[in-house]
Amino acid sequence: MSFDARAFALSSRGAARALVSATTQKKDDALAAMASALRKHSARIAAENTVDVNDAKSAGKNAAFIDRLVLDEQRIEAMAAAVDAVRALPDPIGEVTERWTRPNGLRVRKERLPLGVVLMIYESRPNVTSDAAALCLKSGNVAILRGGSESFRSNRAIESALQEGLTSVGLPRESIQLVPTTDRESMLELLKLDGVIDLCIPRGGEGLIRFVVENARIPVVKHYQGVCHVYVEKTADLEVAERIIVNAKASRPGVCNAAECLLVDASIAADFLPRAAKALKAKGVELRAEERALQFIEAIPAKADDFGREFLELILAVKVVDGFEDALAHIAKFGSEHTEAIVTRDDALAKRFTREVTASAVMVNASTRFNDGGELGLGAEIGISTSRLHAFGAMGLKELTAQKYVVEGDGQIR
Amino acid sequence: MSFDARAFALSSRGAARALVSATTQKKDDALAAMASALRKHSARIAAENTVDVNDAKSAGKNAAFIDRLVLDEQRIEAMAAAVDAVRALPDPIGEVTERWTRPNGLRVRKERLPLGVVLMIYESRPNVTSDAAALCLKSGNVAILRGGSESFRSNRAIESALQEGLTSVGLPRESIQLVPTTDRESMLELLKLDGVIDLCIPRGGEGLIRFVVENARIPVVKHYQGVCHVYVEKTADLEVAERIIVNAKASRPGVCNAAECLLVDASIAADFLPRAAKALKAKGVELRAEERALQFIEAIPAKADDFGREFLELILAVKVVDGFEDALAHIAKFGSEHTEAIVTRDDALAKRFTREVTASAVMVNASTRFNDGGELGLGAEIGISTSRLHAFGAMGLKELTAQKYVVEGDGQIR
Repeated sequence: MSFDARAFALSSRGAARALVSATTQKKDDALAAMASALRKHSARIAAENTVDVNDAKSAGKNAAFIDRLVLDEQRIEAMAAAVDAVRALPDPIGEVTERWTRPNGLRVRKERLPLGVVLMIYESRPNVTSDAAALCLKSGNVAILRGGSESFRSNRAIESALQEGLTSVGLPRESIQLVPTTDRESMLELLKLDGVIDLCIPRGGEGLIRFVVENARIPVVKHYQGVCHVYVEKTADLEVAERIIVNAKASRPGVCNAAECLLVDASIAADFLPRAAKALKAKGVELRAEERALQFIEAIPAKADDFGREFLELILAVKVVDGFEDALAHIAKFGSEHTEAIVTRDDALAKRFTREVTASAVMVNASTRFNDGGELGLGAEIGISTSRLHAFGAMGLKELTAQKYVVEGDGQIR
Repeated sequence: MSFDARAFALSSRGAARALVSATTQKKDDALAAMASALRKHSARIAAENTVDVNDAKSAGKNAAFIDRLVLDEQRIEAMAAAVDAVRALPDPIGEVTERWTRPNGLRVRKERLPLGVVLMIYESRPNVTSDAAALCLKSGNVAILRGGSESFRSNRAIESALQEGLTSVGLPRESIQLVPTTDRESMLELLKLDGVIDLCIPRGGEGLIRFVVENARIPVVKHYQGVCHVYVEKTADLEVAERIIVNAKASRPGVCNAAECLLVDASIAADFLPRAAKALKAKGVELRAEERALQFIEAIPAKADDFGREFLELILAVKVVDGFEDALAHIAKFGSEHTEAIVTRDDALAKRFTREVTASAVMVNASTRFNDGGELGLGAEIGISTSRLHAFGAMGLKELTAQKYVVEGDGQIR
């Protein structure tokens, strides 16, 4: 029998009203029960995962793919601990973000409420299933989870544990549902359900995200690539600058908040570039430098398309700029609005940088790697949005809410 | 020559960087100059409008349509005054909404920035051209304005005055642009420009909005219909309840925040319905009551589809409910998440109503008609969103912004 996307999504929608009115205590009880159930069923989850992993190996998937897919007891414990960590976060629902009184005596406030039904689309990491489910539940949202086909059995086993936790405290099992098929047609049908599903958050490669954006009729919060720059301004503390670029590039090159390009003011290039190059090369970083930078360091000559490129490996583009305006122009042209950093001791320029650079996170004298929900103090993140609508940057619990106006009067009319 | 939507939108995008870094003073100077230019060129605007109006009359448009289209000197003065009023509002850009410090000493804050390029699509009211332009400019956004074909000459004359104001203070004229054609194909092309245009706000009939939602690949903030309820709970002050339902239904029945349905608790129906019916009928309201309500009042028997219907005229559906839960279930089933009101003296129930009802504005002992940017104190509104993504309810200047993370450190790395 074919999958009925509308009926499935409507069953999720039906659970939304229960979650809107669920108390913090009820949601926390559910999260505790979900974490317990993950621990209790860890052997079964691991067994199902083994089948997924063997299938992926037979299908010739590479080692990095297999590593993302594998769930052992330790990783399942980490998933349960992450659910517990979300439980410990403050409940955003009902939070009053602003309040004021009108001349006619009306008391107005803005109050957070859940978004409704959130569709998460992701690839091979099965821990996203429990992470996303926990964040959605804590923020009163129903989660529809659509993982990759390679992790389907693992996800099914995780879903089953999470639903056991939900029903044990009397919340509807449909509050968290895995899409029961992984074909593209089913995903396409879900993406058309404007008015039934409130938001889609795709996480994965750029191809997946573009496919979702192209085909969705429901709102999508996008997470495109991170082409992050570190700009070393002429007043920079060069020791700080060196430490930051090395960390931003080399600490974990495969992630979206890693730096891809170093910009250095011409007046300090002779001082800074040689020492930076030495430190970066010691970490195995390949430098691709444009002509002016090549005067100061040995490096591969950069091609035009090395700027604006997300390498996601130990490669860094290097460019000498003629001061602040030139750096800003380069970032505006080649940046992806993800994370941009300046190293400077000039407070006025730091202020202009934070104001004039459009990026989800703007760093002053700090590594780009801090653009992460955990590092920023959100407790956990469901993704990083690179578009400005609804949420920009790391999305935690608050970014999974909307705000309504609440107006209290004493019989006022217009 | 055909219209090149991408080139046109890119010319708007080019203006965006100038607006991101424009100071409050510069934007206010521009708004003052825009208002002056509207006043200075009012005769020309009125003359162009006369041509539009005559064409519309020849095309057989009805009186209500013509009334929305007409611009006389008084209405042009009102447009200029509205631009001045936006100028007087606080600049949302750069506002810090939250700030905190991390254990590693990083100082994190969330700061408002413009959305970028906003596409307004609207129908026959030419005053929207200057209203939307002013709100976008004050919030640092570039406006692309796509009005109806019937008001094209009026809009052109208004655009010309607004651009005169912009350039007189040195801001790019492309900060505010009218789409130079009004065919549907051009609109369709603009709606596909994900990455160039950041947001589309359609205002007009449901057909227009559905067309935009169906075809857009850029984010859309929707404004669907308002099916607003007034629920008179058993502890209500009946005098207050009568005043509110009469105001909510009869003060301006053609607008989205007018009430369409009255719900009354069974235990007070005998007391309340006759007096409410009398007051409503005195205002010319036709009542359509379901069976139980017909025991207490003379009215037209309601058909099933009279519930959940936006009449937009002096017609009100009436239903007796069995207490709070029954009222909530009715609202959840038939409401449009626009505006919902309760009349009650029970504080606990009022609190539950504000928490559990999903609507862009929830009213306690106040008329639904207060769901309006001006009445809520936003100063002006660019629309009312009925979807929960990005903004929910009345959208003022703040709702035309995004927020980025700004992180200040002293050389921190991860």
